[in-house]
Amino acid sequence: MADNSPTDQLTEAGRVFYARGWGRGASGNYSVLLARKPMRLCITAAGNEKGTLDETNFLELDDDAEILQGFGRPSDETMLHLSVYRLRPRARCILYSQTVAGMILSDRNFVDGAISIQGYEALKGLSGVTSHDHTELVPIVENSQDQIALSHVIQNVLLENPNIHAIYIRRHGLFAWGETVEQARRHIETLEFLFEAVERSAN
Amino acid sequence: MADNSPTDQLTEAGRVFYARGWGRGASGNYSVLLARKPMRLCITAAGNEKGTLDETNFLELDDDAEILQGFGRPSDETMLHLSVYRLRPRARCILYSQTVAGMILSDRNFVDGAISIQGYEALKGLSGVTSHDHTELVPIVENSQDQIALSHVIQNVLLENPNIHAIYIRRHGLFAWGETVEQARRHIETLEFLFEAVERSAN
Amino acid sequence: MADNSPTDQLTEAGRVFYARGWGRGASGNYSVLLARKPMRLCITAAGNEKGTLDETNFLELDDDAEILQGFGRPSDETMLHLSVYRLRPRARCILYSQTVAGMILSDRNFVDGAISIQGYEALKGLSGVTSHDHTELVPIVENSQDQIALSHVIQNVLLENPNIHAIYIRRHGLFAWGETVEQARRHIETLEFLFEAVERSAN
Amino acid sequence: MADNSPTDQLTEAGRVFYARGWGRGASGNYSVLLARKPMRLCITAAGNEKGTLDETNFLELDDDAEILQGFGRPSDETMLHLSVYRLRPRARCILYSQTVAGMILSDRNFVDGAISIQGYEALKGLSGVTSHDHTELVPIVENSQDQIALSHVIQNVLLENPNIHAIYIRRHGLFAWGETVEQARRHIETLEFLFEAVERSAN
Repeated sequence: MADNSPTDQLTEAGRVFYARGWGRGASGNYSVLLARKPMRLCITAAGNEKGTLDETNFLELDDDAEILQGFGRPSDETMLHLSVYRLRPRARCILYSQTVAGMILSDRNFVDGAISIQGYEALKGLSGVTSHDHTELVPIVENSQDQIALSHVIQNVLLENPNIHAIYIRRHGLFAWGETVEQARRHIETLEFLFEAVERSAN
Repeated sequence: MADNSPTDQLTEAGRVFYARGWGRGASGNYSVLLARKPMRLCITAAGNEKGTLDETNFLELDDDAEILQGFGRPSDETMLHLSVYRLRPRARCILYSQTVAGMILSDRNFVDGAISIQGYEALKGLSGVTSHDHTELVPIVENSQDQIALSHVIQNVLLENPNIHAIYIRRHGLFAWGETVEQARRHIETLEFLFEAVERSAN
Repeated sequence: MADNSPTDQLTEAGRVFYARGWGRGASGNYSVLLARKPMRLCITAAGNEKGTLDETNFLELDDDAEILQGFGRPSDETMLHLSVYRLRPRARCILYSQTVAGMILSDRNFVDGAISIQGYEALKGLSGVTSHDHTELVPIVENSQDQIALSHVIQNVLLENPNIHAIYIRRHGLFAWGETVEQARRHIETLEFLFEAVERSAN
Repeated sequence: MADNSPTDQLTEAGRVFYARGWGRGASGNYSVLLARKPMRLCITAAGNEKGTLDETNFLELDDDAEILQGFGRPSDETMLHLSVYRLRPRARCILYSQTVAGMILSDRNFVDGAISIQGYEALKGLSGVTSHDHTELVPIVENSQDQIALSHVIQNVLLENPNIHAIYIRRHGLFAWGETVEQARRHIETLEFLFEAVERSAN
């Protein structure tokens, strides 16, 4: 991927995910952290289809979700993104995907509190995982339109689970992060592939 | 989507849906409302594959389904489209899709009278829906080759269900409308995605 | 489809089917009837991947499967194709597809002697079918490497079932014909779509 | 496929497999045998996404997995590839794929020691198989991060099963070989298609 700018890389991710059916409609957002002190991020504006993003669909926001550059409405999920960047010092990109297999597992495993995946070689696609003999947990959080409440829940999950790579919001989608856009993409692709395997195994 | 003309947008929708396998053969039709008083619409002519439409595959019809412009036979479904435009003052586009998941649900839920979808964030892709905690009904109507009878049934369904975004004709396909081609497309994509989720959840 | 020559149209069909995963490997053949008296046909040579055909992959054969033009080995299935053309005076093209859903149904319904499909609007994609309230039978024939024996079975099936559009060879694939390449394509696409619907309905 | 160099052909295979979802992340490797005495092979370097390979992603190694040309880290799986080339005198290419159906069967059939496939015409896509009435075994080997131990197991499997075309490493992926890149590709495609058929048949 020879993309230079962060927005180019996010645009490409959106195009690829959309082509796979992983991000229909305007659900979810992509962001890149531009700076930490003070915190500035670049995030998709609300209401944009992810398959056809361009540079006009992004906003530059500060720590209070105030717009520094760009036109549009900050997504409701901006607080979720800020929560991840604050509690994960190495995260620089957050991506999102929405698939049938993931949503089904978020229902099926809701009582367990997390989707648990173990024993697959593909787990090595997650940063820090060097063996198939690893158990990855993807915590499941109940959805809510109250973004403040949802952010608090996300923060607690992040604090209690230092090794996770992603969180699933029930019947919503997968939020995964990484140190680069490429790594965040790999995390999304790895987990969505494993969701499909786990979901079909149980049939 | 930088398409200008309505036929360009319908052509693009057909190409995208066909590529996904959502509209094989000549089933279903796409239309755009050109004017209300008097009513004029532009609709795909009968017998056209939706994946390879061009401007010659469209007819301009009046309120009586008489051809004002174009060559071809008006689709049997013209009356359905006219029914929707008459009873939905804001609708300006009707699209169609045909998938395995949708057809299976139209059988499985036929006795309930509708496919019911609740709790998914993706429901917010439907106009007027602002929370995942929403119950969307897609009424199921028995198919018939008698278009006059079918139109009357469709009209009753539209009158009795002011908030629906689409109707499913059993073992036929999904008819969804919107205020623009883009919105109708989003409705189709949102519902087909949710049909897949609901259908697989029950296995 | 602006293709002129029959081989162009067959090449395009191969490319499309291969892209969908309907014809991996060298299974099956495509043919076009060039003339009836005497009978001449153009058929894919043995051992060719269908996704990357070009004009060198076709042979022109006579009624005895002797090569009139082209280089290569006539496919073992040449006799099947000749049987269809002899017993279906209007057929001018035979196509083939191989999918998981079709193969599963060919096993599941083998004892019934045919895959039976009824009630779907999509059935109107088959020539001569004007209502969803139609029952289409796709006879299932046991596979055999003895092409002479297999041809005789196929001939009996064709004689006993004047209205069928296709035959399924168990755990092999779907053989469908039409008056044009476009019609044969539509028959394949219609039936494969319906196989997927019928197969998933039973889960 | 008009590709000249082996790396071009491997790059193309990676692109095609990735597009189908058969090789997300950096799992698995592709290699081509350049010479036997002394043994030299060209293999994908560790950590490369298979969908976007180019000539810089390959290493030329000798029999001891020492780098003769190229930059990067030899994959952990290099020993597996060397094992296959040593024990299969005609193999010149090894490819890899990772699918949900294959991984599910590698679990489901682990106690049997192999995935067994019989009766499908598509089996004729495997070299040396001339009839659908053939039973193909794909031995399943437990995964291990100890590559030396894993190689020994692979060697025993190859010695005990002279007619196999591929091996499945449980919850990892399919390793298949061929006399050319094209043949290895056909083996992967044939087996993955049949895995899908066998896996869905059992639901």
